[in-house]
Amino acid sequence: MKILVINCGSSSIKYELYDMPRESSLAEGAVSRVGGEAELEHRCGDSHLRRSVSSPDHAAGMRHVMEALTAGDSSVLRRPDDIDAVAHRVVHSGCESSAPAVIDDEVLAAINRGSALAPLHNPPNVAGIEAAREAVPRAAHVAVFDTAFFASLPEHAFRYAVPESWCSEHHVRKYGFHGSSHQYVALRAAELLGRPPEQTNLITVHLGGGSSVTAVRDGSAVDHSMGMTPMEGLMMGTRSGDLDPGVVLYMQRRGLTVEEVDQALNFESGLLGVGGVGSDMRDVLGAAGRGTKRASLAVEMFVYRVVKYIGAYYAILPRVDAVVLTGGIGENAWPIRRRIIKRLERLGAVADEARDKTMVGGAEGAITADGAKLPVWVVPTDEELMMARITFRTLADRTK
Amino acid sequence: MKILVINCGSSSIKYELYDMPRESSLAEGAVSRVGGEAELEHRCGDSHLRRSVSSPDHAAGMRHVMEALTAGDSSVLRRPDDIDAVAHRVVHSGCESSAPAVIDDEVLAAINRGSALAPLHNPPNVAGIEAAREAVPRAAHVAVFDTAFFASLPEHAFRYAVPESWCSEHHVRKYGFHGSSHQYVALRAAELLGRPPEQTNLITVHLGGGSSVTAVRDGSAVDHSMGMTPMEGLMMGTRSGDLDPGVVLYMQRRGLTVEEVDQALNFESGLLGVGGVGSDMRDVLGAAGRGTKRASLAVEMFVYRVVKYIGAYYAILPRVDAVVLTGGIGENAWPIRRRIIKRLERLGAVADEARDKTMVGGAEGAITADGAKLPVWVVPTDEELMMARITFRTLADRTK
Repeated sequence: MKILVINCGSSSIKYELYDMPRESSLAEGAVSRVGGEAELEHRCGDSHLRRSVSSPDHAAGMRHVMEALTAGDSSVLRRPDDIDAVAHRVVHSGCESSAPAVIDDEVLAAINRGSALAPLHNPPNVAGIEAAREAVPRAAHVAVFDTAFFASLPEHAFRYAVPESWCSEHHVRKYGFHGSSHQYVALRAAELLGRPPEQTNLITVHLGGGSSVTAVRDGSAVDHSMGMTPMEGLMMGTRSGDLDPGVVLYMQRRGLTVEEVDQALNFESGLLGVGGVGSDMRDVLGAAGRGTKRASLAVEMFVYRVVKYIGAYYAILPRVDAVVLTGGIGENAWPIRRRIIKRLERLGAVADEARDKTMVGGAEGAITADGAKLPVWVVPTDEELMMARITFRTLADRTK
Repeated sequence: MKILVINCGSSSIKYELYDMPRESSLAEGAVSRVGGEAELEHRCGDSHLRRSVSSPDHAAGMRHVMEALTAGDSSVLRRPDDIDAVAHRVVHSGCESSAPAVIDDEVLAAINRGSALAPLHNPPNVAGIEAAREAVPRAAHVAVFDTAFFASLPEHAFRYAVPESWCSEHHVRKYGFHGSSHQYVALRAAELLGRPPEQTNLITVHLGGGSSVTAVRDGSAVDHSMGMTPMEGLMMGTRSGDLDPGVVLYMQRRGLTVEEVDQALNFESGLLGVGGVGSDMRDVLGAAGRGTKRASLAVEMFVYRVVKYIGAYYAILPRVDAVVLTGGIGENAWPIRRRIIKRLERLGAVADEARDKTMVGGAEGAITADGAKLPVWVVPTDEELMMARITFRTLADRTK
């Protein structure tokens, strides 16, 4: 079964084509800067295609994806209809259930309603679904929700201590994000640890442009750092993470509008706001290495907040089999990992610097010493594969 | 030296008169409902006075305090001028330093500027200072700042990951609250543990109408749960505690004003908002005991969030000599303490239910079993005594 995995942002379409259940990736790529002077990047096997394309909207972008998949040297399909299913990453389901759903008009209407809760994410998700349904009308389209892995959170973890009406009338609660990433690394870590997933307790830490932590108990998520929006939790590239809600109100009284505060906390905060040299951890580490005080502070705050979340989740889990690092920073930035492990010695981590330094560029394995009471692992994430698996299972269950 | 300790809220004046350095309390009391039909309560020794008084403002209230201290059966002074010093609780210093300050016009002007940062707290503090200077003009007046104990927080703990200009131009940072309470119980706990304060690591947990946690390393505060405002941190009687900042913006987009969100998060959230039976933990526990689901959820959330903070601070401290509970809930609500200790078994706490149940009504001591790796203590707080000590030391240092 050929499953095309789609992840649409406001100006991008990322895709990967899988042959399932073999789990082999046939091709992958992205259309970037949709709406402007777009660019297509396409890889299959050793061939790597890169070209400027006209893509005024997601529908046009999707046609370029189909062309790359079906025409020329790098093609892997004869025609679009060879795709059996399309897996769509969707942030909010817009209804009670976050279980994966075969998309019909009713599901699409619910996802559209979900835009009120995820104004930055759901609208491009919808645009992607519409574009793909047009391009591959005969395939099964499945929505895989970013929040699904967090459906197992207990109420005392997802509820905020706000007035009841905010929850019942306005659906205020913790929903969580990066679900497929946390789910993938939790499953893979259990496999690497040689434990059944349902008997594995983990703290999975996704550190990238956006960052989040999940407490996993017996294979299920029981707490998570992101909230109703992706603003809560860890310090990120340009997002503030945890912040006194009183500061939001204070800055508005100082004259900022809701939009200005939103813009500042989403796009001008985090590593960028503190370090002042950009949102990419490599740049921040570089500046810190050259003695820039603000950059050093940004690194220290980033690490400190990761450690506090790990400590909090360590306390609420009856046992922790491993801390699992993933995402661009977690998979590569060993100077950050080294600092995290140093601070986690308190909880039983034992540094192994040689392992840590070499565990980069897609490598997976432990980066603490053998026998450490609290092992720390690096497990590269693969959201796309997780989505392909979920979609395959959803369709298999359906035909039973 | 007679030191009168004053704590002024928007509609109240609390006071306690100390003979220092003996640390003996001569009298204490409060004027409540200042601005309306006020009431004076005054205690000294076994006598207890309670009467309605006219107190349209803090100045009138202060005159009643002076009268209670100097006239009638319950008097302890011949005249107001027998008071050598007045210690004023002030939330924000309004300037860089939070060291205790002998109040002159310059200090008072700075405190007035601090009202921008603490709009609910500094104005009544100023009213109290003005009323007391009028009533006891010859005494030394000393401002003891609520934030002083948190002056030792490192930058990575007090800085928020917001744009630099918010910090440099608008003074956005974590300031902390309940400083004198955390400082008092930290000193007292060190004494009870038989350790020099400067070699004692603690997690002090103040649980009352407002609640907060402090990480104390070598006797100094290194992290704290309240933020720029008292809204951040633990779930409280009517305050939300930690909340996705995106929720504040979301509710404004749903039509609420800044004032309405502020009102909701300060006065309609926390135990009240979740439990629906009031802000007093005794009422919430009662309702939970009768099987009210929302009340049980409020209790569970309250405990869960305390445990997460303890876990976070446990991770960042190289060693924890004890967790110290204080405040109305910490000193009395053993069903809450029992739940906290149960969850802290993970970190080495060992419950001793007999001790826990009897440690109420002002008793102090360990409530975990002897030899527990993580001891939990109850230490009743005494902010007023701490303020009297600080004031005595400030004046003694001054005359050197």
